[in-house]
Amino acid sequence: MRATVIHAPHDIRVEEVPDPVIRRPTDAVVRVLRACICGSDLWPYRGESVVEPGSRIGHEFLGVVEETGSDVARFAVGDLVVAPFVWADGTCDFCHEGLPTSCPSGGDWGDGGTDGGQGEAVRVPFADGTLAALPADAASDERLLTALLALSDVMGTGHHAALGAGVRPGSTVAVVGDGAVGLCAVLAARRLGAGRIIALGRHQARTDLARTFGATDVVAERGEAAVEAVRELTRGQGAHAVVEAVGTEQSMRTALRITRGGGAIGYVGAPHGSGTAVDLRHMFDRNIALRGGLAPAGAYIPALLPDVLDGTLDPSPVFDLTVSLDDVADGYKAMDSRTALKVLIRM
Amino acid sequence: MRATVIHAPHDIRVEEVPDPVIRRPTDAVVRVLRACICGSDLWPYRGESVVEPGSRIGHEFLGVVEETGSDVARFAVGDLVVAPFVWADGTCDFCHEGLPTSCPSGGDWGDGGTDGGQGEAVRVPFADGTLAALPADAASDERLLTALLALSDVMGTGHHAALGAGVRPGSTVAVVGDGAVGLCAVLAARRLGAGRIIALGRHQARTDLARTFGATDVVAERGEAAVEAVRELTRGQGAHAVVEAVGTEQSMRTALRITRGGGAIGYVGAPHGSGTAVDLRHMFDRNIALRGGLAPAGAYIPALLPDVLDGTLDPSPVFDLTVSLDDVADGYKAMDSRTALKVLIRM
Repeated sequence: MRATVIHAPHDIRVEEVPDPVIRRPTDAVVRVLRACICGSDLWPYRGESVVEPGSRIGHEFLGVVEETGSDVARFAVGDLVVAPFVWADGTCDFCHEGLPTSCPSGGDWGDGGTDGGQGEAVRVPFADGTLAALPADAASDERLLTALLALSDVMGTGHHAALGAGVRPGSTVAVVGDGAVGLCAVLAARRLGAGRIIALGRHQARTDLARTFGATDVVAERGEAAVEAVRELTRGQGAHAVVEAVGTEQSMRTALRITRGGGAIGYVGAPHGSGTAVDLRHMFDRNIALRGGLAPAGAYIPALLPDVLDGTLDPSPVFDLTVSLDDVADGYKAMDSRTALKVLIRM
Repeated sequence: MRATVIHAPHDIRVEEVPDPVIRRPTDAVVRVLRACICGSDLWPYRGESVVEPGSRIGHEFLGVVEETGSDVARFAVGDLVVAPFVWADGTCDFCHEGLPTSCPSGGDWGDGGTDGGQGEAVRVPFADGTLAALPADAASDERLLTALLALSDVMGTGHHAALGAGVRPGSTVAVVGDGAVGLCAVLAARRLGAGRIIALGRHQARTDLARTFGATDVVAERGEAAVEAVRELTRGQGAHAVVEAVGTEQSMRTALRITRGGGAIGYVGAPHGSGTAVDLRHMFDRNIALRGGLAPAGAYIPALLPDVLDGTLDPSPVFDLTVSLDDVADGYKAMDSRTALKVLIRM
């Protein structure tokens, strides 16, 4: 089959690789219908994180079960499924508690001889623990299929951020970051009943989308000016619930400064310098909590899926460019240059 | 009247100071019956924090209302009251939300021309917002009076730590720090229904007290050995709820390493280097939350007071040395040299 391989920074290729086969009785093979490119895929692409040359890449996909191992009980050939961005056994303490990202038997797509998500098919370890079933008729609804793909990562991550930030009905929420995750956090905050949602971002196309998603205010300033703008919108107090969806030192610093005393930061931007901005004394004096991390996206699918299916939750607009697998390198270029927000790969 | 004054590191004196008088209609004057010395009073004593020479000191006291301003409605002359470690107006958004430590009109004892708690009397700003009423007959019960004094700071701080750590019925809890706050966190964790409480500490008298307070296990090791010991006690996973009650780099590092994936650190040790130990990547990968800060002790009194009054919650044993006001300098020496855990000052 063909799959995406990264050889070096900016060197993304689609190559012929071995067809996935069932190796363990708990495996399934999924024929991929849709995959996508994540902001975190840009780290190896930009050389910001090291990868083994020739590594498979991609961790978000949706497709049809093509083959199942003898121990797979929840899925049959032909089932439409979505995979979250980690695989997990579904049986350990952590999986039972809704934290599959901490499953000691689990792993990332592409690790340990697994396939990456950006390819024609994927061997899925622990299929029963990893995959989520989707209704078969969704396969014929292009928009819905795109929205469902977001459950593999960005929508669950936005939801995780909103939960971490403690969004409740009526909350004043601020979202730092206008990438796909930040935008999904806006959606998640609205879904959780936020009274006011302040989106911080400089790219008008993205902040316009944030408004469509439920943002009541947009702050285009950065740094000190952004802090002042949020304070002005919140009677000088800041927001109770703040989402940090970037992971840089500046974004975390901004998040801290706009969080109200007694509030919380839901951080889902993988730390890329943000750790140095965690000013514990500032947090201590104000009782600001920091809660988040790698989103257990798979654990959130049961809660989010009904809303996606009935259309009340629609993250599909975060995908603003669609490429074929052959053109995946163009997709990376578009996301790297920020001409695309999030790239859908149609097989 | 006489009150405790700090002139320089290790220079604590009891001096004649002006008698407190009502300055604003919302003030009350409280004649102090009991005060105490806090671990945080040792910072200026040790020269670890800067104070103006001649500053008043002490922020924990309990006494009898001696005079009230014309706007004081909740208290009358003769009432027995306890004061939390900050004063607050009781009317702002933060006070209403249970976070008097963030009250913009509030302050610390000794600040802004107020009295310190370690003296014969104290002018209490915003008496209605600051003080908590105690039953009059408690004044004749020596043990109870001591237990009630703990509501001014340590017991509320221990409770805040346990809440921050997310202690729930059945939780496995680890408490880093065997000072008075750590011990009160053990009490608080037991009160919240913890299933297992692991106390980390090296001083046997203190860890013995921890056992009396409800600790099921004691880990006397430090650093890497402590981490290993806690992991062994928790099937290699760590504790769901971890209290960090010290504030140093080592204590925070230990707290992080013994927290289970998906767990939380309730930190109440005022940061004295602990910020540098906050490894955000470690937290991110494991979804470890950090929640705590300056305890809103006053807001917790309504919840904790009934349990102290009926004896089910008894922090009085953390006071292991009693001095008179004249001998307060001896009390500081005893706490500084760790020969005393917490010093009660009887007026």
